[in-house]
Amino acid sequence: MIRVTVWNEFQHERTQEKVKEIYPDGIHTCIAKFLGQEEELSVRTAVFDEKEHGLTEEVLANTDVLVFWNHMLQEEFSDDVAERVRRHVLAGMGLVVLHSGHYSKIMRKLLGTSMTLRWRHGDRERLFCTCPTHPIAQGIPAWVDIPEEEMYGEFFDIPKPDDVVFTGWFAGGEVFRSGCTFTRGLGKIFYFQPGHEEYPIYHMPVIQKIIKNGVRWCVPVVRRPAPLDNAWVNPSTEEVYLSSHQK
Amino acid sequence: MIRVTVWNEFQHERTQEKVKEIYPDGIHTCIAKFLGQEEELSVRTAVFDEKEHGLTEEVLANTDVLVFWNHMLQEEFSDDVAERVRRHVLAGMGLVVLHSGHYSKIMRKLLGTSMTLRWRHGDRERLFCTCPTHPIAQGIPAWVDIPEEEMYGEFFDIPKPDDVVFTGWFAGGEVFRSGCTFTRGLGKIFYFQPGHEEYPIYHMPVIQKIIKNGVRWCVPVVRRPAPLDNAWVNPSTEEVYLSSHQK
Amino acid sequence: MIRVTVWNEFQHERTQEKVKEIYPDGIHTCIAKFLGQEEELSVRTAVFDEKEHGLTEEVLANTDVLVFWNHMLQEEFSDDVAERVRRHVLAGMGLVVLHSGHYSKIMRKLLGTSMTLRWRHGDRERLFCTCPTHPIAQGIPAWVDIPEEEMYGEFFDIPKPDDVVFTGWFAGGEVFRSGCTFTRGLGKIFYFQPGHEEYPIYHMPVIQKIIKNGVRWCVPVVRRPAPLDNAWVNPSTEEVYLSSHQK
Amino acid sequence: MIRVTVWNEFQHERTQEKVKEIYPDGIHTCIAKFLGQEEELSVRTAVFDEKEHGLTEEVLANTDVLVFWNHMLQEEFSDDVAERVRRHVLAGMGLVVLHSGHYSKIMRKLLGTSMTLRWRHGDRERLFCTCPTHPIAQGIPAWVDIPEEEMYGEFFDIPKPDDVVFTGWFAGGEVFRSGCTFTRGLGKIFYFQPGHEEYPIYHMPVIQKIIKNGVRWCVPVVRRPAPLDNAWVNPSTEEVYLSSHQK
Repeated sequence: MIRVTVWNEFQHERTQEKVKEIYPDGIHTCIAKFLGQEEELSVRTAVFDEKEHGLTEEVLANTDVLVFWNHMLQEEFSDDVAERVRRHVLAGMGLVVLHSGHYSKIMRKLLGTSMTLRWRHGDRERLFCTCPTHPIAQGIPAWVDIPEEEMYGEFFDIPKPDDVVFTGWFAGGEVFRSGCTFTRGLGKIFYFQPGHEEYPIYHMPVIQKIIKNGVRWCVPVVRRPAPLDNAWVNPSTEEVYLSSHQK
Repeated sequence: MIRVTVWNEFQHERTQEKVKEIYPDGIHTCIAKFLGQEEELSVRTAVFDEKEHGLTEEVLANTDVLVFWNHMLQEEFSDDVAERVRRHVLAGMGLVVLHSGHYSKIMRKLLGTSMTLRWRHGDRERLFCTCPTHPIAQGIPAWVDIPEEEMYGEFFDIPKPDDVVFTGWFAGGEVFRSGCTFTRGLGKIFYFQPGHEEYPIYHMPVIQKIIKNGVRWCVPVVRRPAPLDNAWVNPSTEEVYLSSHQK
Repeated sequence: MIRVTVWNEFQHERTQEKVKEIYPDGIHTCIAKFLGQEEELSVRTAVFDEKEHGLTEEVLANTDVLVFWNHMLQEEFSDDVAERVRRHVLAGMGLVVLHSGHYSKIMRKLLGTSMTLRWRHGDRERLFCTCPTHPIAQGIPAWVDIPEEEMYGEFFDIPKPDDVVFTGWFAGGEVFRSGCTFTRGLGKIFYFQPGHEEYPIYHMPVIQKIIKNGVRWCVPVVRRPAPLDNAWVNPSTEEVYLSSHQK
Repeated sequence: MIRVTVWNEFQHERTQEKVKEIYPDGIHTCIAKFLGQEEELSVRTAVFDEKEHGLTEEVLANTDVLVFWNHMLQEEFSDDVAERVRRHVLAGMGLVVLHSGHYSKIMRKLLGTSMTLRWRHGDRERLFCTCPTHPIAQGIPAWVDIPEEEMYGEFFDIPKPDDVVFTGWFAGGEVFRSGCTFTRGLGKIFYFQPGHEEYPIYHMPVIQKIIKNGVRWCVPVVRRPAPLDNAWVNPSTEEVYLSSHQK
């Protein structure tokens, strides 16, 4: 079983009528539900208001892939928890970051850049697949229309991604690297831009399929309890080899 | 003029006889001297013991490329100064990080990974050029022998570099990505592994040439006073365009 | 089932006693045998002396991953068959190229560079994993010793790989990008350097595991009968969208 | 001096009135003229109708950067000349390929993929800079509007570029990797999509600046008379080193 934790800030859905209508039980519940349809996924959720944001050492140690959505409380998010998540990613935990999560402390710590972009409400997006050989693109059409979406536009200040799986076209005249993969330490990261809370984007089957693909791609190849550490090698690898292979 | 600041921890050279003999005025003075031979470079130095480590806002604002060597005082380095350097790199300042600087707070903040590796004293290295088209490789032979060097070995926990300009072979049986480039925000970073303080590596003309090439490559293409920020785009780029291009 | 075709030049094993002893039925039979132990792999073989080298349109159309070993008859290999293989790779067929296959017409056509390197018989190699998050590295130790191997050394004139999964250290003093991945068109390519015919390298379980991992990684995400073609888009994607989404 | 050869098919400008009005002396003359304004560039031109298309061994041996525009006569272009250009690129010659040159035999040979894309006449493009640290982006605004341009759209079947310097937004609803860099052998390649012959795109100062930047970036770091060749290394690099460094 792949153990998935879906984390959501869960603020908009409790305070804005429009959002509540779309995600009455929160974005996390919506995502957990469609992920839970997959037999090999075991899904739980956590939200901002829980103690340690619900991302305790124990939860993370038992998570293969963390799916993360946040927006309003970027700065209020605990530095310690952000650092803890970073350490688990470096130790191999997969991370799927959605929409405004690009600016989470977690992502800024992991990627190091400003993570800034240009944005505007009330646009329309067309996602083009620009890396059809990527497992995240499996079964996804050449392009996907999202009738209503917040615009995120270039220049997006990220390190060069391993792959730009999706590139977004916006009716308002901008482009965006909307689906990007990164590897940090032993952890795989998939950033996926769609998902403004005011539009029912996570109800779209094709978006759900992309997120499912993303979760599967992020499953650790190797998982450790902690990030790698510096290691003193003495005697040398050659000395060890020669001592055991020569008469 | 390219304004270069050479920063050195400057501890070993004052406490260890062996190091003092090789670098009587400190590694920074040695590096500043050979860089200063280049007409287009204007070089100054700074060391750990200065106030704010000599890396004040004013110094960094007037630095095009920072060359950085440290080792013993990784954790004692000011968090605030490390963050300040990170911000200037994101804003365009070039950064040449030497040897044990891989584990500086600056590099860990900028690159996000553990930056760990395997190591051992008393080895010998052969640097192979694995990206001969890179400006940093200009005029450098296909390989360079370093008769005495500390071993740094894989796995080196870094994000995938833009280019691996040099790959190191060690007599003790390991390999290392010894010369790596990264881009973060608007800043270019060149990490170059050679330079253990107990060996006269920065006196080698070919090593000096690589560092000179590295400095030139790191010169900003664009430089800002601060990293990029999120920007609200309203009206849209299309609206602006259409309003000025249609009757 | 993943349909694998293992192709071998099959010359050395019939003419050189030393090679015949190691691979009495040919390298292809050895590889087919260990791949065949995997339940999800359906394996067949083909060799140079067959008509069209055994790589007919029909064989390739029914191959998910082609494993390829050649050496002596690089120039004698049919241009037409090389082009046919290239087209199937661009259309999605996976390709695992072993050892001296780096210089096959297939690889030169697909990658475009000279594919040249430095080489010498009678060396010893240590493979370091330099991308532990890659599926091909799954279950492989941090390094693998190959007691006898032909040396392949840098500079290796290849396009920048997607990932350098393994980097080789040679006792004779060189390094090599020994395990590299590429994507061309819809096809995934894994080049793996070990496997000189005079040493029993493909009998090593860890090498077998790497090749099995390589085959699995090369399985097409999407497979077409032919490479992609230019496509005239008229009316535009916007016109199509707007005509169906507006009243 | 940087020796630049500007090559043009030079067919449209002699047969289509609309094109003749925009480029009365041919696209090559227009490009040669604005490049010639740069002091360090020494520019000549060549066209399809010349013997060997004007790209003789001697011309190429004396060219640092080749700028290439073609369209109608892709298949009529000599295989031998295409192969000759490929060899000079692998030997270090820079190559700036414009617009429909993506589908030239030269590019297909060098990059190996189908080089196909989606296209449509009569669109409008906005180029976004998606790699502001690249020398080709120096002095170029965050985006550039091209009022009339042929649409080139994704999926563009190219190998993963070293950098995607510009990403194009098209009013008709598509995106494109409009400015891409590649390195093949010792040669640097800049592919730049703008420049349909029916619109005065090469008269735009900002487009001229991008092409000038591209030419400068493509200047060889190392230039050889021929591509690299396989090299037999005997005695080993270690033997040579040890024989000269030990008593």
